[in-house]
Amino acid sequence: MSAMIGIFDSGIGGLTLVRALKQRLVDYDIVYFGDTARSPYGTKSPQRVNTCALEGTEFLLNQGAGVIVVACNTASSVAIQPIMQRSRVPVIESITPAAAMAVESSANLRIGVIGTPTTVASGEYEKKIQALGAQIKVISAACPLLVPLVEERWLKKPETNRIVKKYLHPLKVRQIDTLILGCTHYSLLKKTIQMKIGRRVKIIDSVAAVAENLKDYLQAHGQVAASLSKDGRMRLFVSDLTDQIENSAKMILRRNVRLEAVGD
Amino acid sequence: MSAMIGIFDSGIGGLTLVRALKQRLVDYDIVYFGDTARSPYGTKSPQRVNTCALEGTEFLLNQGAGVIVVACNTASSVAIQPIMQRSRVPVIESITPAAAMAVESSANLRIGVIGTPTTVASGEYEKKIQALGAQIKVISAACPLLVPLVEERWLKKPETNRIVKKYLHPLKVRQIDTLILGCTHYSLLKKTIQMKIGRRVKIIDSVAAVAENLKDYLQAHGQVAASLSKDGRMRLFVSDLTDQIENSAKMILRRNVRLEAVGD
Repeated sequence: MSAMIGIFDSGIGGLTLVRALKQRLVDYDIVYFGDTARSPYGTKSPQRVNTCALEGTEFLLNQGAGVIVVACNTASSVAIQPIMQRSRVPVIESITPAAAMAVESSANLRIGVIGTPTTVASGEYEKKIQALGAQIKVISAACPLLVPLVEERWLKKPETNRIVKKYLHPLKVRQIDTLILGCTHYSLLKKTIQMKIGRRVKIIDSVAAVAENLKDYLQAHGQVAASLSKDGRMRLFVSDLTDQIENSAKMILRRNVRLEAVGD
Repeated sequence: MSAMIGIFDSGIGGLTLVRALKQRLVDYDIVYFGDTARSPYGTKSPQRVNTCALEGTEFLLNQGAGVIVVACNTASSVAIQPIMQRSRVPVIESITPAAAMAVESSANLRIGVIGTPTTVASGEYEKKIQALGAQIKVISAACPLLVPLVEERWLKKPETNRIVKKYLHPLKVRQIDTLILGCTHYSLLKKTIQMKIGRRVKIIDSVAAVAENLKDYLQAHGQVAASLSKDGRMRLFVSDLTDQIENSAKMILRRNVRLEAVGD
């Protein structure tokens, strides 16, 4: 049996990664699991995220994942060790690729990070960045309202602009030159974020960074790449299905998609 | 063993009901369960809410609840039948009391309801109101961002005011004279909501309505009231515990509280 690229996320935000992978690894088969029954993860405790993430990645292994990409930054921040210990296939997480790109980009050594409360509280981005440059200053901000705003599809509303501006203010005054979007949902607000943080700040989207990272990984690991099926198929599983989730999925993938609900 | 008043909620919003009960039924012992590990319910499917609500009320029964109050409007809207079937003690839900108070209040027979997407989609408020007056017009609006705004404690921020105004606009133009706050969290935004909907609109808080209803119920059912312990004790359980949850609980109850985390 040939294997698929397994993508794990707390909900449907990780479909931004599916979109990014479809542009880079066109024919690779994808199996996606979004834990919509228990999302969001970003306001839950690390222990809770651990429990959920382990069950989600287990599901992907059972579906025949030959490599697992943890799209969710919250799970990547607080649950990656147990996932790696449990997984019998390679695991790619979402923090290191964006941290490395940001370190490469920053000239003034002041990097901003925005993410969920649990991601920011974990300090993982800070650790990864400072492992690459101990003198780099990392300024982080938790942005708990951005996930619900994106899920409401309020992408271009004035209310969203104001809230983005408010969250970015402390990063702006501290003159970051590089900003990491440390949550899959934030990809969809990239234009607004760029506008509010200013044109001179380079934005590093963790979704694009992890997509590049997976592509590089497969180029460097021919045996893993060869083991993966490439029939352009895609299966998208969620643990809870509502109209809202279906509409958001369509918005992110820009086409009709079939989501399959799976039980607890 | 004497029994306690059991309060079930999807998270910590139901603590507004604890506060309301403490003013009315001072000495009654309370056991609270907030399903913070799986909250919010308001954007989940009815099936999912059913599963979670049944487990939550089961927990309260095991803790010795002698009556169960479903504080969560979403669970009251879509999961009350199975809860009542499963429970061996009386169950009080949150829709009927507010609906009855609104019908009593409305002179122009135009009642507004705001709630979570799942509550509004269920049409339960509409059904209960129209059972009391078939000619009454019910105008409902789902307000998905209000729960995250309250949980962020952005109660008095201009961003919150703007969002409240936006949500209330369709109800205002249709000239409702009574507005039901159909979610435990909205109690905390009552002043802002009153300001934006206008002074002439009577606000019915489902939390206050259900607290009154429980008081009336206990007056009418002396045997149930007599079976309940009255030592002024309170135990507050949550299925996930974070600093954010603890801070919100303190804000709602206006004092230090001890939350006890219970596993899945």
